Amino acid sequence: MSAAADRLNLTSGHLNAGRKRSSSSVSLRAAEKPFKVTVIGSGNWGTTIAKVVAENCKGYPEVFAPEVQMWVFEEDINGEKLTEIINTRHQNVKYLPNITLPDNLVANPDLIDSVKDVDIIVFNIPHQFLPRICNQLKGHVDRHVRAISCLKGFEVGANGVQLLSSYITEELGIQCGALSGANIATEVAQEHWSETTVAYHIPKDFRGEGKDVDHKVLKALFHRPYFHVSVIEDVAGISICGALKNVVALGCGFVEGLGWGNNASAAIQRVGLGEIIRFGQMFFPESREETYYQESAGVADLITTCAGGRNVKVARLMATSGKDAWECEKELLNGQSAQGLITCKEVHEWLETCGSVEDFPLFEAVYQIVYNNYPMKNLPDMIEELDLHED
Amino acid sequence: MSAAADRLNLTSGHLNAGRKRSSSSVSLRAAEKPFKVTVIGSGNWGTTIAKVVAENCKGYPEVFAPEVQMWVFEEDINGEKLTEIINTRHQNVKYLPNITLPDNLVANPDLIDSVKDVDIIVFNIPHQFLPRICNQLKGHVDRHVRAISCLKGFEVGANGVQLLSSYITEELGIQCGALSGANIATEVAQEHWSETTVAYHIPKDFRGEGKDVDHKVLKALFHRPYFHVSVIEDVAGISICGALKNVVALGCGFVEGLGWGNNASAAIQRVGLGEIIRFGQMFFPESREETYYQESAGVADLITTCAGGRNVKVARLMATSGKDAWECEKELLNGQSAQGLITCKEVHEWLETCGSVEDFPLFEAVYQIVYNNYPMKNLPDMIEELDLHED
Repeated sequence: MSAAADRLNLTSGHLNAGRKRSSSSVSLRAAEKPFKVTVIGSGNWGTTIAKVVAENCKGYPEVFAPEVQMWVFEEDINGEKLTEIINTRHQNVKYLPNITLPDNLVANPDLIDSVKDVDIIVFNIPHQFLPRICNQLKGHVDRHVRAISCLKGFEVGANGVQLLSSYITEELGIQCGALSGANIATEVAQEHWSETTVAYHIPKDFRGEGKDVDHKVLKALFHRPYFHVSVIEDVAGISICGALKNVVALGCGFVEGLGWGNNASAAIQRVGLGEIIRFGQMFFPESREETYYQESAGVADLITTCAGGRNVKVARLMATSGKDAWECEKELLNGQSAQGLITCKEVHEWLETCGSVEDFPLFEAVYQIVYNNYPMKNLPDMIEELDLHED
Repeated sequence: MSAAADRLNLTSGHLNAGRKRSSSSVSLRAAEKPFKVTVIGSGNWGTTIAKVVAENCKGYPEVFAPEVQMWVFEEDINGEKLTEIINTRHQNVKYLPNITLPDNLVANPDLIDSVKDVDIIVFNIPHQFLPRICNQLKGHVDRHVRAISCLKGFEVGANGVQLLSSYITEELGIQCGALSGANIATEVAQEHWSETTVAYHIPKDFRGEGKDVDHKVLKALFHRPYFHVSVIEDVAGISICGALKNVVALGCGFVEGLGWGNNASAAIQRVGLGEIIRFGQMFFPESREETYYQESAGVADLITTCAGGRNVKVARLMATSGKDAWECEKELLNGQSAQGLITCKEVHEWLETCGSVEDFPLFEAVYQIVYNNYPMKNLPDMIEELDLHED
């Protein structure tokens, strides 16, 4: 038993003994040929996840090849290459400064080279780069490679809602799951305790324990003492919540900006959680209701997102200043975008196509406030559930 | 149709039309003899609820007797009686200053007189006064009177967990439901929008619509444009959440005080919600899982409580100062108590009796930190779900 496994067993402690949801008798089998892992992406969240993964690949040498490749979009930092800085000083000085990275994490500027002979790819790049990356990877990835997408959310087009993990599967022909949770990157990088959810559906061509990626392998790859992982099957559930939480956060920003206090913000989150669940059940009937209220990627990520972050800030400023969303975004986010502003429009258009706008009064109210200048003080009326009038 | 019902119909607006959960065709029947309502209690929350109730009794004269009695524990305020101040100046200057009360709300210092010929009693007094109040009321309340308890939570004794609503039923022989939600009293009194949950189980001796209290009558009694009410059956569910949320809030205070950030607080809330649901299923199998994540008294009240309040503050100070719970409580709360400190002990003792401590690792960790000085930085290990080790 490795030192890491030893430590994992130790941390389970006496308090966990006999817990119903724990199953400490389940064992992690050594891989016939240790899995080689590559992380694609090296921004704030990408580098953080690469750190987590590299720590575990070093800790479980029977399961993972110790060296973890991280594809880095090469940049010049004061005359030095970013990859060289990462590989010699073990810091991503541009996107994750002051955090020491494990020395088995190797930055590679060559995308195709970084996935050579790989078994597991972790995608962690900004949403808008995904099509280009997938295009470049085509023909260089074996169909038995498995993937996890850390990209949030889904795309809504004329034909409906597509999960980003499904996009990766379609483009590259590989099985792809997702990782999502209440994870502000900097807090995870600093090893402040948090939780996350990994969702992965075992494919039909699964080659057997020790030969292929299963839930235990994924737990070993991502779980750390400071980063607790729950592995489930429901890829759709966690992806839906990852996208729609931003719309709910706009609603929280409005009521905060109006000075309505904690009761109102909690009410928006409650209504929002209900609409997220309804959206999942309507468009991804395979998603499980429990995912939304039991998993970090569900209710916990919703709470973190609604406690602060870009969407709340933009909406709050809209309420206090009377300016429109785009002015507020420009003023606050320095060229970045509040994802909820885009998502609420995509969702509105899709729901209109389906004739289901009225089933999602909060999403619709947020859309109307952002795009049609609907008075935000009417929000309560817009989402009210009325079921009485006198005869 | 009254003006109030007119307004209610208006506010439903076009956005609500066709909503699945709304049922605007359901009508509120005029009562054969309008229901007389009394509120027992006149503290901060008691006076706020009395204001809500009095507004609705005035608005629906076909359903409720316009005059609402509020029993007030008489006090002398600079030589004037508190009841006289309320009845002449329409303010509860001591417990809810600067809020104008409706003139149909009548303060009464005589408990027995306040419930004369009453149909509906709303209990809203501090927990510790309940036995004495019930004792005084015995023999003065007809068995057909219906009650709603706004008191939070439950009592844990050697024989298990008893809901406060059940205590009222046992003591007075009357059917009793509960009201609970994400409701900071001052925000409700100021008519900032919030939501609440009313739970009431229709009794076997129900005398028929228009003659007895049903869900529509309760909605009319409590729902306001600024106070949205959902009426359900699950009294146990909302009461359990109302008590256990305070234990979860202590956990949030610990991780906040340790400087672990938003991820950690959201994780505690997620784990806490799961344990609240498990507690409900174990000891009140009639309670519904949906109550905890769909209702204001569930997830929303949990979020509001964990965003601030007494329990968070005490636990945060414990973390930052190293002082014990009782010192922190004394320092911060000016003689009031952080309910979670009592509840976590009662719950621990009850779970030990049942041999179920290990099913509730967060509740147990909070108890051990408060009562046995267990190091709070071990919290993540104490609640970790581990399900792997290498062969």
